[in-house]
Amino acid sequence: MTDATPRSFPAPGDHDALELGTQLTPRFDAAGLVTAVVTDVVSGEVLMLAHMNAEALARTIETGIATYWSRSRRSLWVKGETSGNRQHVAELRVDCDQDAVWLKVRVEGHGASCHRGYRSCFYRAVPVGGPADAPLAFVEADPAFDPADVYGSACGHTHS
Amino acid sequence: MTDATPRSFPAPGDHDALELGTQLTPRFDAAGLVTAVVTDVVSGEVLMLAHMNAEALARTIETGIATYWSRSRRSLWVKGETSGNRQHVAELRVDCDQDAVWLKVRVEGHGASCHRGYRSCFYRAVPVGGPADAPLAFVEADPAFDPADVYGSACGHTHS
Repeated sequence: MTDATPRSFPAPGDHDALELGTQLTPRFDAAGLVTAVVTDVVSGEVLMLAHMNAEALARTIETGIATYWSRSRRSLWVKGETSGNRQHVAELRVDCDQDAVWLKVRVEGHGASCHRGYRSCFYRAVPVGGPADAPLAFVEADPAFDPADVYGSACGHTHS
Repeated sequence: MTDATPRSFPAPGDHDALELGTQLTPRFDAAGLVTAVVTDVVSGEVLMLAHMNAEALARTIETGIATYWSRSRRSLWVKGETSGNRQHVAELRVDCDQDAVWLKVRVEGHGASCHRGYRSCFYRAVPVGGPADAPLAFVEADPAFDPADVYGSACGHTHS
């Protein structure tokens, strides 16, 4: 984290250049962020959503270690630097209009990506085909680690 | 789309209720939206990211047909109503802090979810482990349909 030069990417071109070209020209939002969806490269499970600014995206590409922008802490965030659950990027993709990226990762340590200790942040299912107020069902029975052990409190960094 | 009563969900409770409870209390952002990540229930491939307001989320839960909020058109959007590529929701999950949902879907029609005719919006890979300006590589060689045939122009609705 000692780099002094803020990283940037070329500005997006027209619609066709953006969507059918081969140059990475991310469309960062008003806060300077793109959305990152993170899946497990083996199971295909969606582990989490997070955000990246230009610096986080450039570092992720160059190092192959998932690096995000923490909106709550307003700082770069090498995922897993506290918990040991670093994410190695096996594949990185960008979507049609370049405002989102998809990371397929291999998770170190406990193999968990949620600050609650679960493998995936999406550990509860919403029943489909009935009323919208039906109770959620837990699909991961037990956390892979105890957040109190890892973070020294009941709550680690959220993914936002 | 004839329902007159706008749908709503209970307000989020405290941290533990939000993250460890069994009540769906989505944290809609300032624009009234949550993020939806959509994967193919068979291949596990991430197909697209989109957004839902309360009405879109309630309809998706009740009908099992993926319904989003189009930020560009400012209207409810039953995905695939033009192209025929409707998305049947096999499973729906909510993330830890309830500002995102994950839909596992089965896609009708051409089996494509991108307005450019590709199966996935994430049809280009960013090479990892080298410079951040390396060219993108197409991972889907050919679109599953021709957008000009389906939408009558080169460009359908984007997923945003």
